[in-house]
Amino acid sequence: MLLCDIGNFSAKFYDNGKAYSMDFEKLNNLAFDKKVYFINVNKNFYPNSRKFINIESYFNFDTNYIGLGVDRIAGCYTIKDGVVVDAGSAITIDIMKDGMHLGGYIVPGISKLLKNYEDISPILKTYFNSQINLDKMPQKTSDAINYGIISPIILSIQNISKDKNLYFTGGDGSFFAKFFTNSIYDKNLIFRGMLKAIKEKELL
Amino acid sequence: MLLCDIGNFSAKFYDNGKAYSMDFEKLNNLAFDKKVYFINVNKNFYPNSRKFINIESYFNFDTNYIGLGVDRIAGCYTIKDGVVVDAGSAITIDIMKDGMHLGGYIVPGISKLLKNYEDISPILKTYFNSQINLDKMPQKTSDAINYGIISPIILSIQNISKDKNLYFTGGDGSFFAKFFTNSIYDKNLIFRGMLKAIKEKELL
Repeated sequence: MLLCDIGNFSAKFYDNGKAYSMDFEKLNNLAFDKKVYFINVNKNFYPNSRKFINIESYFNFDTNYIGLGVDRIAGCYTIKDGVVVDAGSAITIDIMKDGMHLGGYIVPGISKLLKNYEDISPILKTYFNSQINLDKMPQKTSDAINYGIISPIILSIQNISKDKNLYFTGGDGSFFAKFFTNSIYDKNLIFRGMLKAIKEKELL
Repeated sequence: MLLCDIGNFSAKFYDNGKAYSMDFEKLNNLAFDKKVYFINVNKNFYPNSRKFINIESYFNFDTNYIGLGVDRIAGCYTIKDGVVVDAGSAITIDIMKDGMHLGGYIVPGISKLLKNYEDISPILKTYFNSQINLDKMPQKTSDAINYGIISPIILSIQNISKDKNLYFTGGDGSFFAKFFTNSIYDKNLIFRGMLKAIKEKELL
């Protein structure tokens, strides 16, 4: 059994503890010999293999949020209490309490934000600096940009998490997790949620 | 005498209390009959009229920041103590203390951020909602995006301003000013800084 999480820019697979990414063209040119349980937030792509089984309907998720992405549902699905941060091309931040989803919000991811500055002015083109000191007011443009990307996101997560546990996942999840003491980074959080949903359906 | 603030997307003029915008093509096709004192952060545009006088060197500004944009210098130039927020295509946030610039940072502006979401996924295309309730966790995508744009910026300004006075300018300045009690919105803040620099040069 394979798991597959189809996003906006690529698909992630999970094969018995191992995770890897694949582009859409390769995915639809591969012959799959076992079942692939998948979720998909990409409206412009659908896997053409008959081995793919969409498990979106398997999630029994308690929320009042209208139109919550299935990747966010899967990311929250194993969390009873806490804040779930999936930091990828977008950063989604969701709150769980007693197994219920209380809502959440979305900020653009680091790489998208960096690109934004460059679009505003070529003077604002710079690179991501994971070592930026947030305790000091920036004294040059590259620091001003990195501070402007990272500091508001961290303050916003602090503001809603307070003493709650924080669960980070996604490509930039481990970077953000380091700013919080009460944080756990789990790169396979979404796959764990998918596994839980599949188990509940007694398919495992 | 005219003042002109040339930005990345248009030029703003100030004529004896009246301010107006102009696109670059029109600017370079107009015949100016009086002096235009200007600042320019746009590396791809330069006014071709001989009436234009670049006043960047007129500012006697105390900072350790390397490469601070002249528009930010002008915006801070009349402020002795406080935080200056210029909320346009980019949002610049600068701290002044005893007439010295202590540093600052840059976040993308509201319209640029909105465009970002759309680039990540067509599902995330939405409109700016100035009435978003920041005290409630969003329960739908359009709220999740508007919250994700506005809340981190406000928290970030709160975090550095604390009890300092806040001076807002720029197209979205009046919107942000409303979230703070200790705030002043001055749409002509940059022009006031330019006037101060010109006066100091005894050109008025």
